[in-house]
Amino acid sequence: MARAVDSVFLLTDFGAGSHYVGVVKAVILTVNSRAIIHDLSHRIRPGDVREAGYVLEASLPHLPPRSLVVAVVDPGVGSDRRIACFYGDGPTILAPDNGLLTGVATDGSVRVVEPERLELAPPASHTFHGRDVFAPVAAKLSLGLDPRRVGSVMRDWVAWPEWHPIQDATGAWSGTIVHVDAFGNLITNLDATGMGEAIGRDPVAVGGATIQQWGRTFSHVAPGKLLAYIGSTGHVEIAVRDGSAAARLGVENGAAVRLGPLES
Amino acid sequence: MARAVDSVFLLTDFGAGSHYVGVVKAVILTVNSRAIIHDLSHRIRPGDVREAGYVLEASLPHLPPRSLVVAVVDPGVGSDRRIACFYGDGPTILAPDNGLLTGVATDGSVRVVEPERLELAPPASHTFHGRDVFAPVAAKLSLGLDPRRVGSVMRDWVAWPEWHPIQDATGAWSGTIVHVDAFGNLITNLDATGMGEAIGRDPVAVGGATIQQWGRTFSHVAPGKLLAYIGSTGHVEIAVRDGSAAARLGVENGAAVRLGPLES
Amino acid sequence: MARAVDSVFLLTDFGAGSHYVGVVKAVILTVNSRAIIHDLSHRIRPGDVREAGYVLEASLPHLPPRSLVVAVVDPGVGSDRRIACFYGDGPTILAPDNGLLTGVATDGSVRVVEPERLELAPPASHTFHGRDVFAPVAAKLSLGLDPRRVGSVMRDWVAWPEWHPIQDATGAWSGTIVHVDAFGNLITNLDATGMGEAIGRDPVAVGGATIQQWGRTFSHVAPGKLLAYIGSTGHVEIAVRDGSAAARLGVENGAAVRLGPLES
Repeated sequence: MARAVDSVFLLTDFGAGSHYVGVVKAVILTVNSRAIIHDLSHRIRPGDVREAGYVLEASLPHLPPRSLVVAVVDPGVGSDRRIACFYGDGPTILAPDNGLLTGVATDGSVRVVEPERLELAPPASHTFHGRDVFAPVAAKLSLGLDPRRVGSVMRDWVAWPEWHPIQDATGAWSGTIVHVDAFGNLITNLDATGMGEAIGRDPVAVGGATIQQWGRTFSHVAPGKLLAYIGSTGHVEIAVRDGSAAARLGVENGAAVRLGPLES
Repeated sequence: MARAVDSVFLLTDFGAGSHYVGVVKAVILTVNSRAIIHDLSHRIRPGDVREAGYVLEASLPHLPPRSLVVAVVDPGVGSDRRIACFYGDGPTILAPDNGLLTGVATDGSVRVVEPERLELAPPASHTFHGRDVFAPVAAKLSLGLDPRRVGSVMRDWVAWPEWHPIQDATGAWSGTIVHVDAFGNLITNLDATGMGEAIGRDPVAVGGATIQQWGRTFSHVAPGKLLAYIGSTGHVEIAVRDGSAAARLGVENGAAVRLGPLES
Repeated sequence: MARAVDSVFLLTDFGAGSHYVGVVKAVILTVNSRAIIHDLSHRIRPGDVREAGYVLEASLPHLPPRSLVVAVVDPGVGSDRRIACFYGDGPTILAPDNGLLTGVATDGSVRVVEPERLELAPPASHTFHGRDVFAPVAAKLSLGLDPRRVGSVMRDWVAWPEWHPIQDATGAWSGTIVHVDAFGNLITNLDATGMGEAIGRDPVAVGGATIQQWGRTFSHVAPGKLLAYIGSTGHVEIAVRDGSAAARLGVENGAAVRLGPLES
């Protein structure tokens, strides 16, 4: 049965304002001139699959149920990596099978996109499958193609290693920075849910600094001060009020983070 | 009476391409799948309320009368700062009550947004009210909610100090840089209207330099040369032809500007 | 006869997220509230007409046939430079007559925009014709104005010098970098079509380096390695796998590129 798609959201590392984004939209609109297409994000760091996965998880609860996400962070473009289609009760997601779906995929919810089944022309390039494969498939889905018809069930989709933080014998949690926003706030993969009393009590170590100050929001501390807080996705974040924690601490995506009692 | 909203414009400091923007759109579209949503700007400097206020003033005369602006430059998010709704004959504007509306608000034209009146769920976060408060209210307004129903009239809205330039005893005007565009052009808060003969005659001092050359447009001077001119909003601007005045002079938002005869 | 326009694409050097883009959209929507407007690109380097021309050529084959491109990379704004309207079987294009259309214009396909014919108000500024001229004309075209009615046929449109690469007596091709994407990939004006066996065989010299390694896509080489390949527009490109060729080689738009046997 055809599922209506009300809107399409694009998530890429093409860079804000890149014509690669414009061309993907153009290809979709050429097939479906009524498609409603919006940007989810285009400032994923080049090739940063983990960041894209975080942004996807952070956004998914807020997307219209009948939407389609086209996620193209695809450093393996043109190789034999597969393209995956996730579907369920909520938004449908197209993404390369490179770990991007780790946080959302479940057994039986992912199919491999088989372009030949969809009667698509072979890709015109080896380096821009956003234009040549993702966009044409997205256009068909936006017109109501049942996601179950894109190809066979994929049972061995790629899972990203160390997606979740790890707890050591002392109870401390080790994780990573998965996103730095335009304010310079550091978003970690430490999901406060289930971390119990450590949240708001234990210090957070990152980039050589130890943040002992927790707050509810930025104005809890004086301008220029560091604080740890539970961010808008329920993850632990680090910020400098009216400043950039990324610049202050000199850290970026992939930096190690530790939540736990001070090591002696 | 319900007022139709034809389009919604977002003005934030989230950064171009940020998923924070995408999520705000997603929340609006979840409530109103027919909403037409566009970006007004997302390259406001983080927390720069004055710049957002300028961009709002610069854009307002050109927005469709039946549009809604959602302005989220909100360093006080999660504190007890209020959210304001401006309305009148033209576009309706949602913004934090932090001075952003200084250039447009008038007595009786602003109401305080009272989420409980609108039967909104309490905000799910303390740091992303763009998603949790502004977007749901915007969605209701986009569906025709009368702005007068968002809450009581706000009589003590926050006004930004020194919004307008100041004239000294010698007749010279002192103001500030309120926006630097992507070309590196410097936009001041010196509104040429009412500055009479000083415009086109008196030098402009900024960043240690004194610009004596006025022109109608960039090609009035040789490539690489500085000029002062009346910009597209009627304000005095400083540019380098085929170059960046911001880089040349090493100035940014907040820098002091003086228009007046040379000081001896 | 009126030609329907399904969607409008904006191509500017205003910078991603700039309110200049938002205001252009606002002006179009004020006239035509049903216009579907998308971003083609806004990260053209300031004033880089050659880059805009490349992006236009790269995008044109993928745009919906009934679309309109509004290209505003216009360093001569406010001077006596003309505004051109290109039309044919595919998308219609509005652009300043500064060379931007070199790759697409043909005799008889370009008209000069004569605002007075269209009963437009004189431009309100000398520096923002995107808002004051391009947007109002675009709005009329989006409503079905026949492009042949914007003004007379333009026979002497500006052509950019050295648009195409030049072949020397030894058979080597000399060209330039015309675009650097957000990955740091270098896109040249060397169109592989017609370069025969040199493609995939001869080294590419750029920025003091000589790239001898050709590949089909990035994963053809080890991470961190340089490669030459035929990009998604059929042009020769240079990349570093999982890295930035622009940063590695220290080159930007306008840099010279040579494809040919090693010089002895």
